[in-house]
Amino acid sequence: MSASVSPLAPKSYPAMPAIDGVRMATAAAGIKYKNRTDVLLMVFDRPASVAGVFTRSKCPSAPVDFCRANLSHGVARAVVVNSGNANAFTGLKGKAATALTAKSAAEAVGCGENEVYLASTGVIGEPLDATKFAGVLGAMQKDATGDFWTEAAKAIMTTDTYPKVATRTAQIDGVKVTINGIAKGAGMIAPDMATMLSFVVTDAAIDPQVLQVLLAQGVGPTFNSVTVDSDTSTSDTLLLFATGAAADQGQRKIETPDDPHLSGFRAALNDLLKDLALQVVRDGEGARKMVAVTITGAESDLSAKRIALSVANSPLVKTAVAGEDANWGRVVMAVGKAGEPADRDRLAIWFGDVRVAVHGERDPAYSEEATTAVMEQEDIAIRVDLGLGEGTATVWTCDLTKEYVAINGDYRS
Amino acid sequence: MSASVSPLAPKSYPAMPAIDGVRMATAAAGIKYKNRTDVLLMVFDRPASVAGVFTRSKCPSAPVDFCRANLSHGVARAVVVNSGNANAFTGLKGKAATALTAKSAAEAVGCGENEVYLASTGVIGEPLDATKFAGVLGAMQKDATGDFWTEAAKAIMTTDTYPKVATRTAQIDGVKVTINGIAKGAGMIAPDMATMLSFVVTDAAIDPQVLQVLLAQGVGPTFNSVTVDSDTSTSDTLLLFATGAAADQGQRKIETPDDPHLSGFRAALNDLLKDLALQVVRDGEGARKMVAVTITGAESDLSAKRIALSVANSPLVKTAVAGEDANWGRVVMAVGKAGEPADRDRLAIWFGDVRVAVHGERDPAYSEEATTAVMEQEDIAIRVDLGLGEGTATVWTCDLTKEYVAINGDYRS
Repeated sequence: MSASVSPLAPKSYPAMPAIDGVRMATAAAGIKYKNRTDVLLMVFDRPASVAGVFTRSKCPSAPVDFCRANLSHGVARAVVVNSGNANAFTGLKGKAATALTAKSAAEAVGCGENEVYLASTGVIGEPLDATKFAGVLGAMQKDATGDFWTEAAKAIMTTDTYPKVATRTAQIDGVKVTINGIAKGAGMIAPDMATMLSFVVTDAAIDPQVLQVLLAQGVGPTFNSVTVDSDTSTSDTLLLFATGAAADQGQRKIETPDDPHLSGFRAALNDLLKDLALQVVRDGEGARKMVAVTITGAESDLSAKRIALSVANSPLVKTAVAGEDANWGRVVMAVGKAGEPADRDRLAIWFGDVRVAVHGERDPAYSEEATTAVMEQEDIAIRVDLGLGEGTATVWTCDLTKEYVAINGDYRS
Repeated sequence: MSASVSPLAPKSYPAMPAIDGVRMATAAAGIKYKNRTDVLLMVFDRPASVAGVFTRSKCPSAPVDFCRANLSHGVARAVVVNSGNANAFTGLKGKAATALTAKSAAEAVGCGENEVYLASTGVIGEPLDATKFAGVLGAMQKDATGDFWTEAAKAIMTTDTYPKVATRTAQIDGVKVTINGIAKGAGMIAPDMATMLSFVVTDAAIDPQVLQVLLAQGVGPTFNSVTVDSDTSTSDTLLLFATGAAADQGQRKIETPDDPHLSGFRAALNDLLKDLALQVVRDGEGARKMVAVTITGAESDLSAKRIALSVANSPLVKTAVAGEDANWGRVVMAVGKAGEPADRDRLAIWFGDVRVAVHGERDPAYSEEATTAVMEQEDIAIRVDLGLGEGTATVWTCDLTKEYVAINGDYRS
């Protein structure tokens, strides 16, 4: 973990309410770190619905393979997460480690191994000693409590400089439901390499297939619209659980994704996912500034998203932001290299509310002073209008600083 | 220009012979820099065959548009190159500037404007005052000499820390021909943003269509296989000229690309293009190490190239190299994120001659000491075998250092 907290960290943390049906405990199993918790156990005393999205990497970690296999079952009773070792690129040893961890968790909680979900983050290529979990999971199951969200968020941190938590409420069918989420991630990397992990739990009663649809739709404009360094982890995992405890208050279980009673819940879930995703970017390694890149007027939303990512991942744009340099020429470059439809002579570019370029050249009213004032802010909005169609997208990223190079290049892992 | 010369700079420079049919002159027109030459004029007293390849940017500079339009004509009499202003994203003003420059050059040399080729590198979005050329081109045409290659290379530098020149000879049909080339580029960027520019001239007698085929085939494994920061310039231009002077020594003009007499020339040209391309990478901004990324066993050469670029452009791989960190886990990550066919459990990875991973996990014989010794070298070879097919590719890049961030973020442009 980094010594200093990101200047973009939240000024305050929300009080995280307990959610009926889920209990948590953490432990220090000594996976890699000393004097800190590195294992999280989540227990669902009654089977919870579960949905998940994972890294698109062609080289996924063993826990990602394990979760994907169990997801078809759709029911969860336990989640085991560890930091310090990603159990990625560990071959057959990695598969054996997930099997042993699942067995230990199933015994501790009293459930089937296909009701267990696993996630690991930290060193890659290092065999994970799963016997360390066996020793602690039994006691953790007994100690697990519902009022433990922030501690849970701390146990899964790697290079994160602050724990990431968020909570929302919504009404379903007149019954109040709560959604809590935790996340970790600080760039796509940790001392060796890591990951974005996020675990979201609601007491709503929702069918697993419906949860999967909600999650798949929710990640597009949130977790799948943030980038720190364009490097995709082998281990990214986002799991959404529904304990169904709200049924005791009379909430009828949601069985179809187009159920009109879902509208409030969907909005609250998407808002929470965005909150957590932006917290990850704001903890980007070495980050000093947050950048929101918005593309409008593209031929399609997909095209807008690709161009937004080209701008957000450009080292030249990101170093310019770090230098508070209103270097809109680099934005033109990044639009041009995206390979998506673009007409140079229709481009218009804004930094904040200041239009710096229009009709394919510098804005006649360009003011260096005004744009510099924008670049000196902590949060910077860059907008490009392509003038071609109706496609729009927003992607969030952070600046590229010497500190990023230092964190990732200065030590031997 | 940077104060200190790249530690990867060539230890010595070749003597550049004159090439019959081309003369050069440089001048200090005060485009942007003070006390240095910033304009290059190349004159072909007899019409030369010309071929060109350009940036794939959807927002190309005005000179790129101008050259593309003239190329169909296939004949060149003059080339005007300036540093300090890219004449990119300058709208109608940019088009007027290229027209005026071409008119001035055509008058100075006594040729048609469609026989003039232009390239500009430097600040983007800043109108280029082409009247500054009108004043100097006439005198430059008179002073132009054949023995001027290194001075020509210096005049087109931006953030380059050394001039880039190369020369080769070959036999065509028993007649000795020479190929000279110059290039500039130091990352895809300069004080605001720039470019890779390269101009190659031979005295061989070769038809323009044949020249274009040779160039298009030659850039794939050379200029199109190098990356400093993944950012593509609006202005990249590579022009190849054949003066045909060798015809006076009895070389019959080459009219078809499959002419067997071309084999030696093709090899010499490709070798020269690779030499210049690697000189650009070795002058990458902030570069301290050169990295050759080779992918073997891919499903196709194209797939191998995409994976090689994913590794070569990964900030995490590049910062690890800067930190002399044998972080092969980040190579796995970069392979996995490329989106190309890959089987985690068939991957093998080498740093230099040291195999660090095999069968999807760390090599049982892994030696931290041996890999660290490799990382301490100035030139580092990273190889990944995918074990899927016969596809191979090599891409060259440099490390990502704090100096890169400083060069691109520390000053206000």
